[in-house]
Amino acid sequence: MTYALGIDFGTESGRAVLVDCADGRELGTQVYEYRHGVIDERLPAPDDDVVLELDWALQDPEDYERTLQEAVPALLSATGVDPADVIGIGVDFTSCTMLPTLADGTPLCTLDGLRREPHAWVKLWKHHAAQPEADRINEVAAARGEPWLDRYGGRYSSEWFFAKALQILDEAPDVYERADRLIEAADWIVWQLTGVETRNTCTAGYKALWSKRDGFPSDDYFAALDPRFAHVVDEKMSRELAPLGARAGGLSERAAAWTGLRPGTAVAVANVDAHVSAPAVMVIEPGTLVAIMGTSTCHILLGEREERVEGMCGVVEDGVVPGLYGYEAGQSAVGDIFGWFVRNFGGEHEHLERDAAALWPGESGLLALDWWNGNRSVLVDADVRGLLVGMSLATRPAEIYRALIEATAFGTRVIVDAFERAGVPVERIVACGGLPERNRLLMQIYADVLGLELGVAASAQTPALGAAMFGAVAAGAYDSIAAASRRMARLSATVYEPNPAHRETYDALYTEYVRLHDLFGRHGDDVMRTLKRLQREPQSTRA
Amino acid sequence: MTYALGIDFGTESGRAVLVDCADGRELGTQVYEYRHGVIDERLPAPDDDVVLELDWALQDPEDYERTLQEAVPALLSATGVDPADVIGIGVDFTSCTMLPTLADGTPLCTLDGLRREPHAWVKLWKHHAAQPEADRINEVAAARGEPWLDRYGGRYSSEWFFAKALQILDEAPDVYERADRLIEAADWIVWQLTGVETRNTCTAGYKALWSKRDGFPSDDYFAALDPRFAHVVDEKMSRELAPLGARAGGLSERAAAWTGLRPGTAVAVANVDAHVSAPAVMVIEPGTLVAIMGTSTCHILLGEREERVEGMCGVVEDGVVPGLYGYEAGQSAVGDIFGWFVRNFGGEHEHLERDAAALWPGESGLLALDWWNGNRSVLVDADVRGLLVGMSLATRPAEIYRALIEATAFGTRVIVDAFERAGVPVERIVACGGLPERNRLLMQIYADVLGLELGVAASAQTPALGAAMFGAVAAGAYDSIAAASRRMARLSATVYEPNPAHRETYDALYTEYVRLHDLFGRHGDDVMRTLKRLQREPQSTRA
Repeated sequence: MTYALGIDFGTESGRAVLVDCADGRELGTQVYEYRHGVIDERLPAPDDDVVLELDWALQDPEDYERTLQEAVPALLSATGVDPADVIGIGVDFTSCTMLPTLADGTPLCTLDGLRREPHAWVKLWKHHAAQPEADRINEVAAARGEPWLDRYGGRYSSEWFFAKALQILDEAPDVYERADRLIEAADWIVWQLTGVETRNTCTAGYKALWSKRDGFPSDDYFAALDPRFAHVVDEKMSRELAPLGARAGGLSERAAAWTGLRPGTAVAVANVDAHVSAPAVMVIEPGTLVAIMGTSTCHILLGEREERVEGMCGVVEDGVVPGLYGYEAGQSAVGDIFGWFVRNFGGEHEHLERDAAALWPGESGLLALDWWNGNRSVLVDADVRGLLVGMSLATRPAEIYRALIEATAFGTRVIVDAFERAGVPVERIVACGGLPERNRLLMQIYADVLGLELGVAASAQTPALGAAMFGAVAAGAYDSIAAASRRMARLSATVYEPNPAHRETYDALYTEYVRLHDLFGRHGDDVMRTLKRLQREPQSTRA
Repeated sequence: MTYALGIDFGTESGRAVLVDCADGRELGTQVYEYRHGVIDERLPAPDDDVVLELDWALQDPEDYERTLQEAVPALLSATGVDPADVIGIGVDFTSCTMLPTLADGTPLCTLDGLRREPHAWVKLWKHHAAQPEADRINEVAAARGEPWLDRYGGRYSSEWFFAKALQILDEAPDVYERADRLIEAADWIVWQLTGVETRNTCTAGYKALWSKRDGFPSDDYFAALDPRFAHVVDEKMSRELAPLGARAGGLSERAAAWTGLRPGTAVAVANVDAHVSAPAVMVIEPGTLVAIMGTSTCHILLGEREERVEGMCGVVEDGVVPGLYGYEAGQSAVGDIFGWFVRNFGGEHEHLERDAAALWPGESGLLALDWWNGNRSVLVDADVRGLLVGMSLATRPAEIYRALIEATAFGTRVIVDAFERAGVPVERIVACGGLPERNRLLMQIYADVLGLELGVAASAQTPALGAAMFGAVAAGAYDSIAAASRRMARLSATVYEPNPAHRETYDALYTEYVRLHDLFGRHGDDVMRTLKRLQREPQSTRA
């Protein structure tokens, strides 16, 4: 018996899963809740007099180390597995989550003089304060006609690597100067495990403008953003990228001591939570869209060619599975919208679900645009907002709840249509993440709205399972992630088939959705942006 | 000391108020809750196996008689007033609320053979099942170029007299045949008080197409609707109309026995709840819009001339105050929308009000269209529905609550703008009804959105006070309703002035409101109607 360890570094916690290399069977799970969680109001004590600005979101890199030190030993102890039988380790991470370090990997925020400097900490994926930098990146790229912009749906996000790096340079040039390395937390934790700095192609491709064929953008481009930024790749990053599935190194003595595993155990190159999920749900070929559905949804799709798909987050050759183009799209709020509704408007999820399930399509007379957190794909517009139309005095909460579910399904269909239009086929969908296993109604509505068969992951720990699979590959148990996927991944027996009786009504509702989507999303009517502008106007202009 | 009695027949109850003729001081109020209230699901026991169709709303005429028999004696007893000092009685009623009777006024629904026939009962104002008949009335009028259509904003409502009468003919020709009279409940209750059938010019003008100059539409027109309907006016109604403020007759012996008042006491010609409110809030001249704000809002405005105002409910010469044109407009849901929100989405009114009051205009980023019950003015479209735009994950219930209040204020501003455009000036507003006294925030928002000074009725019983004033005029205590109004009506000391600091933002929001109003209301985008169509499609087409 050999085992692989997968560690999934999420937004609130780290999660370690031990998996049988032969068949993917999960032996156990241990979760470490980050001590400092998401740092978005003030720095942790004793520096909690340092207040963060709006839209900031930081993390403490020591929370990642503590995950290794606490969750992994607990997992070994709980499962009784002999550390000698654990042959490989893989990690996946949120992304782009990045930090500045010294040349030896020491996070700047752990240095005495920099502890109170917010820019010295880890910038979490949902740190949204680098919008001015993202705007500059886009404007300069458009002005220069940079060829890579198309691969990112025509727009670089404020969440991504160079926006965050440039914000450090703009606002804290001393920190930027002091940083020997700027690195994805995914690669940083692999560095802590192995003692070797590696950079994975997935985060480089999706978040840092790297491509297998063209590498990074030119120094001229970076210089046009800021002369001091001209050599950011060579000075702070690396042009050497390690492919997914490769062995980053062996477990260091120090990390072995932390985890209780054997020194030298194979550690895989880092990966991203969404992307690592595809092979974990048996998606290693084109045609199946993986929907990782939680507070937001991330979509992963494989294609044979690089096509221009409207408003994608990115397309990266070998970015998910070697030999194929990995497309990423997303919806910036899904479970978050349902949670918002339940939290603000009372009722219990179970009651709402039951009452909403008793409705037939169209019965409520409601239609929503699911933009409570902007639109990530295909509009790539953070300033659009939610819309609900059709309310009468007879409208009930469960009807609104169902309309919100339907709206997110229509949003997914817009993304699927964009893929199809661009010649990247979508024949079925496999869902994983927190939402699918708890929400049968949600799944059936998605199948009905999309007119596609919907499979569901068997594992509740999809990303960690995927990470473990890459660990098994790094250890040589399989010669490719595809081979590992065929043996170690599994889908639930539950398959949601579209109900043909719902087809016509959902097609009619989707037609309405698309028209409103284009009207409010493509500047036919700018009410959403106007409202946002009025919202931002300083209160002082009013009495 | 002389007193006048006002009786306000509402939707759920009848309310009697005793008033000092000299200064309008209210001595007391008694309310009779109708035993059968609104009959909208099944007929009252023992006939409760008779189920009503959707959109029906009936009442029991005996509930009106019981109001006289219970509320009035209780009021005399509670106030200790000598019946000999009560010199006049006035009534106001919901409208168009109508019923079929025998020649002596006996309601058909009280006859043994017709008790189980829904069409024999009183059709309440909000009976909405006569839409096909209203459509026919409009189509035939448009085809024939009937000149009166303009006075009703180009559209006759399904709530009004001839739509309801025609529905009886269409669906229950025997009942129509049996009915010697078709009469407004307002006039019917005056008939019960006096033993004399009269017809008031207010309901005739606003609900039955009568005008002082042209009388009723021609028999040819009615014949074009249905040959059997050709002589409806002469056969079932009357061409003799009694002006507002006139004496309908003296209290009959029978009614004196019911009420405890003296036989022969002057009874005024009937009036309508909204219209009777104008003199009760001192509005007897052009320039001041009366807003009767409750579950819905009715607007009354006086003008010197008959102008074409878009989407008005009606304009009637002498319809409110003799010598002036009375314009009526309306918003079909106001308090009903706030009630819907509180009922469905929890929270307490007081908390929502307090939290909403702490927001500044535009802060929520939300905007709504207040069409939860369609749009009465200026679109005259029952099929449009509510819309809410601008929601984010940070949106709180109090923000939505405030946006709903603002939406109804914007809706009022659209009506005011239509009046102004047509040359009927609106210089200030006086609010009465159930909402104003309880909702300071609502009043301030209206003043801010409209940019107009907002006065509030002093009396909580505005319609009953107005009715009593007409009773005083009928008794000869004053020679005109204007003279009575100057002495008996009063406004609250509270006046809401527009906050100039809110002007700019509300103007900007109103611009957005009007654009969405026109887009979704004037067929720029028909999503609301499409949703309503999908909602109506039979469930059987779906599995």
